[in-house]
Amino acid sequence: MDRVKLVEVGPRDGLQNEAALVPTDIKIALVERLADCGLRHIETASFVSPKWVPQMADGAAVLAGIRRKAGVVYSALTPNLRGLEAALAAGADEVAVFTAASESFCQKNINCSIEQSLARFTPVLAEAWARRIRVRGYVSTVLGCPYEGDIGPDAVARVAGALYRMGCAEISLGDTIGTGTPGKAKAMLAAVRREVPIERLAAHFHDTYGQALANLYAVLEEGVRIVDCSVAGLGGCPYARGASGNLASEDLVYLLHGLGFKTGVDLARLVETGHWISQQLGRENGSKVGRAMNG
Amino acid sequence: MDRVKLVEVGPRDGLQNEAALVPTDIKIALVERLADCGLRHIETASFVSPKWVPQMADGAAVLAGIRRKAGVVYSALTPNLRGLEAALAAGADEVAVFTAASESFCQKNINCSIEQSLARFTPVLAEAWARRIRVRGYVSTVLGCPYEGDIGPDAVARVAGALYRMGCAEISLGDTIGTGTPGKAKAMLAAVRREVPIERLAAHFHDTYGQALANLYAVLEEGVRIVDCSVAGLGGCPYARGASGNLASEDLVYLLHGLGFKTGVDLARLVETGHWISQQLGRENGSKVGRAMNG
Repeated sequence: MDRVKLVEVGPRDGLQNEAALVPTDIKIALVERLADCGLRHIETASFVSPKWVPQMADGAAVLAGIRRKAGVVYSALTPNLRGLEAALAAGADEVAVFTAASESFCQKNINCSIEQSLARFTPVLAEAWARRIRVRGYVSTVLGCPYEGDIGPDAVARVAGALYRMGCAEISLGDTIGTGTPGKAKAMLAAVRREVPIERLAAHFHDTYGQALANLYAVLEEGVRIVDCSVAGLGGCPYARGASGNLASEDLVYLLHGLGFKTGVDLARLVETGHWISQQLGRENGSKVGRAMNG
Repeated sequence: MDRVKLVEVGPRDGLQNEAALVPTDIKIALVERLADCGLRHIETASFVSPKWVPQMADGAAVLAGIRRKAGVVYSALTPNLRGLEAALAAGADEVAVFTAASESFCQKNINCSIEQSLARFTPVLAEAWARRIRVRGYVSTVLGCPYEGDIGPDAVARVAGALYRMGCAEISLGDTIGTGTPGKAKAMLAAVRREVPIERLAAHFHDTYGQALANLYAVLEEGVRIVDCSVAGLGGCPYARGASGNLASEDLVYLLHGLGFKTGVDLARLVETGHWISQQLGRENGSKVGRAMNG
């Protein structure tokens, strides 16, 4: 049976959108519970300046506090060399850099051009390489940009290819605003795989318009075998109550198991974890499987 | 460009699950607004005994009250000959009969065996034929049953084939409890299309587990071109707060337009209609597109 690698991003990409500060011990418990569900790749912390993302200021404490489980990769987001140093000092097993396929989004999100972002990653990758640390590269706005609208597949392929040639071991393709549909996702993937081997590509789809799982199914058919997801759909769009953001891990696992893929994840336990964290945050569970199985 | 026929079931399959009685004038306004969005097939009423479904007791008043729009088909659910007579007297343009692929579900839902249900439809179809009225056949539990679990593709094909041979012009395949995944949906379709031409088949998928749009995309790829949907996702599962039922029309139209299909529907207006009916019912909008576009 075919295996799909899941990258659980709830503790980082999910929680960073929560308005109220989440206590460090809840973050630690969340990461531990996710590992107990069988998830093997957990994005655990971010070392972006706490000035920009106060929610993630306790990244070192989270990484230091978790009971480590053998075989689990605990990763961290690192915008630059200083972030990398802090992440590694805190014990991150893997790091991730992030840029965008849209020039305007890159400027507004990380305050530099795409070109400048790539230049900034060069020393990060060199240092990570020297220390035998795997680096993941995120490309956001691959199926649409809030400022520019449509983003051409070639623009995505250019950035993804540059990250791959710089040494990123895995490139995660993010439909940040969730506006993509399956045909667009396939066209984007077709362009990107000319630059990056498909086994290095991850799909990171948001469900803001309800399209994430359909898009995901389309790229699974094309051979993508790494998928990012967020327990309970943590990471909802801040601009609309109830509008969801990240693809819920529970809904993804349900799909994958239904299609006969192996994930190593215990779905019932994952549903419990999603229910638990939703209660902790006083938030509606963003996973439909979670709601149906808790009914 | 390829065209997909949408059958809007919100006013019937959607509203019949609402606990509080919805006033007749709201039902009428909903049907009129949906027609104004460009929907051409609207399931408007049900002539099941009001003892069983009190919410639908005013079907004749709804059909009598709507301002008719040229080119729009206003249909009604009719369980038997008496229902057919009432629906036609009230001015239904088309009628629908319903049975299941699961013996247990059929017994619990309509209190007879599948065989008995088909026998009951014979005079309905004969009378409809004599009056040149098109009949749609619904098959529920095509991807799973709450009592029996998995339902084999052959069981679905048998019932769908029987309905087709009896004279149903269109067979709607319902994943009533929303447990299906794309591989199962394709296997079911492969069996059914050996009995019924694919252009006669409609997909009626529920989103209880978040799988509806992925399943739908899978059967679109196989050539299905008729899809049932419900504005604002009306028809949520009564057993779990927030758990959704019918595939939201807005999310479907977004997918179809993104794939380049023509539907004739004005999405912005549909979003407004979904927002309006959700407010009228004091219900959260079950469409993600609806929530995102109203943000």
